[in-house]
Amino acid sequence: MISKTHPRYESLLLREKITKAYKEGYLAESGMIAHGRGEAFDYLLGEKTIYPAKRAMYAAIAQMLLANNPVISVNGNTVALAIDDIITLAKTINAKIEINLFHRTKERIDIISDLFKSKGYNDILGNNNDDLKYINDIESPRASASTNGIYTGDVILVPLEDGDRAEILAKTNKKIITIDLNPLSRTSKMSNISIVDNIVRAIPFMNSIANDLKAQNKEVLKNIITDFSNSENLEESLDFFKIKEEK
Amino acid sequence: MISKTHPRYESLLLREKITKAYKEGYLAESGMIAHGRGEAFDYLLGEKTIYPAKRAMYAAIAQMLLANNPVISVNGNTVALAIDDIITLAKTINAKIEINLFHRTKERIDIISDLFKSKGYNDILGNNNDDLKYINDIESPRASASTNGIYTGDVILVPLEDGDRAEILAKTNKKIITIDLNPLSRTSKMSNISIVDNIVRAIPFMNSIANDLKAQNKEVLKNIITDFSNSENLEESLDFFKIKEEK
Repeated sequence: MISKTHPRYESLLLREKITKAYKEGYLAESGMIAHGRGEAFDYLLGEKTIYPAKRAMYAAIAQMLLANNPVISVNGNTVALAIDDIITLAKTINAKIEINLFHRTKERIDIISDLFKSKGYNDILGNNNDDLKYINDIESPRASASTNGIYTGDVILVPLEDGDRAEILAKTNKKIITIDLNPLSRTSKMSNISIVDNIVRAIPFMNSIANDLKAQNKEVLKNIITDFSNSENLEESLDFFKIKEEK
Repeated sequence: MISKTHPRYESLLLREKITKAYKEGYLAESGMIAHGRGEAFDYLLGEKTIYPAKRAMYAAIAQMLLANNPVISVNGNTVALAIDDIITLAKTINAKIEINLFHRTKERIDIISDLFKSKGYNDILGNNNDDLKYINDIESPRASASTNGIYTGDVILVPLEDGDRAEILAKTNKKIITIDLNPLSRTSKMSNISIVDNIVRAIPFMNSIANDLKAQNKEVLKNIITDFSNSENLEESLDFFKIKEEK
């Protein structure tokens, strides 16, 4: 039990969820290390959702609502931190959910599948090896994708994604949306829409705006996307990182 | 096998050492997450040893050479990343080495003891529960220390230390030296000398200057310490972190 008075209470709660996911067997070691990197960047961001992240989330939801086949890619970290909110988002914007693990093992896939089932979500993709294809014929686990999910999807939300895999996705014609606390990461730079925020704050915010945007017509949604520049938005996001304390 | 051409090759090698330590059973889950935080800060530091870190290392070695009972505290992360260099440093400056784990289990202690033995180092402290005392009578694993080591030591080098434990050490009259990539951490702020550097670069640098400083008389060493201000040095260290890329 973490004391609520601990100066890092909220952060320690998330760390506990990540450790639990590892012990339950569906998170790779590298997922724990990645969580630590995220902690550091969130710490420098003041652990709050910044304005450029919100702007990116409006563009992200608009892009997904305009998609023919929007897919949310989930890995161990995403499931550990945000499974309930991910399911809500998928239902609200009518997106598929695909399990896509950089360190793919049958055991991890099965545990995550079962977790979704235990939440009443039975349509998960990516849990059947026979159904996997390789993006751009790159025969690497980094390029695998399920036939009706990421492989044929046109807009893919890939939170907390590895840089090598993001690079492969970015070379397709798909629109790639990421959630990544490091605005300088390869994933952030290569995505079409990069949300610099902690996933535990981002997905609930996206849920909070999704119904509003669903009520808009397509022109409004297209304008939101046209007005959005990812490189400028990343540049603005950088300004919010404070390594120096306020005097 | 990590390809040498990978853009994050050096960093991935360290990550591999940390993962190996976890699999070997002597590193706690939180140690993996902590490594990730360090990765992020080192990334922002450009993964090089900055001038303020070198100045802090001169002060640190001077302080340890002037000590009556200098002790190097090691945890799982330190052992995984720098065991050989730590042994060299201990021998050069005539310091003791004490295993001190925030998440102490007999298994982890025994594995680390054996690792030191396999390196020909048989004088390790902190591996005997009967020998443990509690600093300032705080009956918590965070305050435990071996009788002839940290408990009676006057200068303690505690690399990669947890903030809660650093706080307990800082409340003693001991001089506390830390190596921590986060200049804003509680550990960095509460220590007497804080070296903002990656331990894999810091300990070799300390070894490279230790013999030079040993050849100096005590007045020279005292002056190095008198001239050193940890708060100013931390402030200067902060200036080297670049969240913005160079244009």
